[in-house]
Amino acid sequence: MTKEQKAINYHIGGKVSLGLKRNITNQDDLSLAYTPGVALPCLEIAKEKEKVYNLTSKCNTVAVVTDGTAVLGLGNIGPYASIPVMEGKACLFKKFGLVDAWPVPLQASYNSGKLDIDKFIDIVAALSPMYGGINLEDIAAPACFEVEDRLEKMLDIPVFHDDQWGTGIVTVAGLINYCKLSNKNIKGLSVVINGAGAAGLRIYDMLKNEGIKDIYLADLEGVLTRDRDYSQNKMKGERARETNKRTLQEAVRDADAIIMVSSYKRPDGKRTFDPRWVLEMKEFPAVFAMANPIPEVSPEEVKKVMGQKDYIMATGRSDYPNQINNVLAFPYLFRGALDCRARDITLSMKTAAAHVLAEIIRERAPDEVNAICGGNNYQFDKDHIIPHPFDKRLIKAIPIAVTEAAIKDGVSREG
Amino acid sequence: MTKEQKAINYHIGGKVSLGLKRNITNQDDLSLAYTPGVALPCLEIAKEKEKVYNLTSKCNTVAVVTDGTAVLGLGNIGPYASIPVMEGKACLFKKFGLVDAWPVPLQASYNSGKLDIDKFIDIVAALSPMYGGINLEDIAAPACFEVEDRLEKMLDIPVFHDDQWGTGIVTVAGLINYCKLSNKNIKGLSVVINGAGAAGLRIYDMLKNEGIKDIYLADLEGVLTRDRDYSQNKMKGERARETNKRTLQEAVRDADAIIMVSSYKRPDGKRTFDPRWVLEMKEFPAVFAMANPIPEVSPEEVKKVMGQKDYIMATGRSDYPNQINNVLAFPYLFRGALDCRARDITLSMKTAAAHVLAEIIRERAPDEVNAICGGNNYQFDKDHIIPHPFDKRLIKAIPIAVTEAAIKDGVSREG
Repeated sequence: MTKEQKAINYHIGGKVSLGLKRNITNQDDLSLAYTPGVALPCLEIAKEKEKVYNLTSKCNTVAVVTDGTAVLGLGNIGPYASIPVMEGKACLFKKFGLVDAWPVPLQASYNSGKLDIDKFIDIVAALSPMYGGINLEDIAAPACFEVEDRLEKMLDIPVFHDDQWGTGIVTVAGLINYCKLSNKNIKGLSVVINGAGAAGLRIYDMLKNEGIKDIYLADLEGVLTRDRDYSQNKMKGERARETNKRTLQEAVRDADAIIMVSSYKRPDGKRTFDPRWVLEMKEFPAVFAMANPIPEVSPEEVKKVMGQKDYIMATGRSDYPNQINNVLAFPYLFRGALDCRARDITLSMKTAAAHVLAEIIRERAPDEVNAICGGNNYQFDKDHIIPHPFDKRLIKAIPIAVTEAAIKDGVSREG
Repeated sequence: MTKEQKAINYHIGGKVSLGLKRNITNQDDLSLAYTPGVALPCLEIAKEKEKVYNLTSKCNTVAVVTDGTAVLGLGNIGPYASIPVMEGKACLFKKFGLVDAWPVPLQASYNSGKLDIDKFIDIVAALSPMYGGINLEDIAAPACFEVEDRLEKMLDIPVFHDDQWGTGIVTVAGLINYCKLSNKNIKGLSVVINGAGAAGLRIYDMLKNEGIKDIYLADLEGVLTRDRDYSQNKMKGERARETNKRTLQEAVRDADAIIMVSSYKRPDGKRTFDPRWVLEMKEFPAVFAMANPIPEVSPEEVKKVMGQKDYIMATGRSDYPNQINNVLAFPYLFRGALDCRARDITLSMKTAAAHVLAEIIRERAPDEVNAICGGNNYQFDKDHIIPHPFDKRLIKAIPIAVTEAAIKDGVSREG
């Protein structure tokens, strides 16, 4: 069977179903699950709304909401074609975070194929009563920023756009551990981010929050310098800087780290990143090439130019070392948020997740973790700067740190 | 533990969760469930929308949608307090119909507490891509009629308001079997329906469809006669009749069957139905008193006035014989609709469900069914005019009949 057939077969009939938390085996059960017994929890919640967290599945349920405008690298394929991704995301939420996520693909792009933001926000707000959190997914930039921002303010449950923040959290973890291996101080790094969409802009924000001052953001037109026109994209304008560097190549020269969330090729057919540019970077550089499925520069290409020199290479792919994978963040972030019935997911909660993520791989893994994650090779080194997705220490360590940050920030309903 | 404590305990943490249809135990599974494997089914659906039925969970998923305006007998308690009922309904869908239903309580009543019908319809349409059918639930009349009607026309999946049709289907089944026991011809019955809300009006429609001509509908003001003003409720006006009978008592005189979907007491504190009125009905009458939890007239009261005379008594309660319970209809109706990927649930599909439901209990039950449903007592007689909810013959017989009716009506995507 080809890989393609295997992928199709895996999806026949879909990937998610309804799970029952209680038995219904006789009339007594029936009269508890439904009338007349069900009237009692209803009345309790009607009297005191917050009891909805005790007496319904809201306490452990997250909506995976999309409009289908930016699905994977496939673009605006619409809500129907987005369903396999939303179901997949729900499965990962359950498998790794024990979160009951539910796919919510919305038909909300009207006529021109453009998202009607007001309408979309109204719809998500209307369906929020059932959920303890909203995970926004695959919504095109720049609409995604306004959607997240306005929903977060409107709703009393966390709203989190994974394409913005998920990659940011794992990237920060990777960069922290790059500094440990290269003996550099994170605050003193010079970092270039290529790609100024949902992920790139938030990676910028999270790196700033780590105290890194020297950051260049670049998009297809080059470095985001102050003298460009940002009237069509406020988010970019706010992150532009005073500099003489114009091109990505110029920005990369003397940088410690290049983080790419763009694509292998530019629309004009030219390559985004030339492997030889790595030679112009500082000593012991970091190259995060996260485009999927083809990284902006491959580990083989970088190896070829760097030879025996020290460097760190990471991609978004599972078949290379150091996979920067959102699945290391969102299940545990929401697990922590749900555990304390958080009202928001704050920047400190995201940062807490990133730091614990980095710590986990630096600690010696117990044998049962090694057995699953790659045997004796599974230890902190240049090829293991972040944990393996099946590392069981993630669920033990990250949610607690997230919950503690939530309590400190005053967004927890508990404690 | 009291009954009340038991009901609350049963609900702690909620009743529903996410179920996974596939294993995710290693990197290979991960790359099928999510990127990169997941891109393939996405592209297939983007190319050909109908493949969404093959490659996602849409094929077996139903939304249980409410605005919380008419929850059980509790009234307009809102979407939050409605969740235990929606979760309960989802559980019954799964337990009895093997349907993956998901609770969708919507915050859609604005300001005045009145439903904004246009907005509600927009929201339900927007969230429909994920579902193979929409089960509307506990939406107040008369808004519920317009909501169902407009959504049914808009969407290419079935839209079914259970409070309208579910009771109708089971009532028709009960009335068919009442005729068998009393040797009456259903078309010749004189029937009175008390309560002209969601259930009452559709029971009327389904009885008309069975060929019954002599039907009186009554509401709190009495019989729906032609000379009343129906400008506020077109649905009632269309079902009014030319008659001299004004009160419920007058209508019941010489009727074969009285079907009550109203309440034990009237708003003025008077009883809705006086047990002695049964004595004025035709020989071998049927009394369906379906108010919950207190029937309009109790089996004990009717027994007291009727003594040894023949009659059939049914209620909505599980602790009396002949429970007219929607759970006998909606799981199997949607099972049949999903099995053939129906575009609508037509009147013939509902009628087919009712007729098979009546047939099942008339047939001798196999021993394993008897064991679950009440031993030797479980056979067609005055106390068993409809099947027990745990009768396994329901799932075998009803969905097939529903699917056949769908194919005949041309609303099936299959066959």
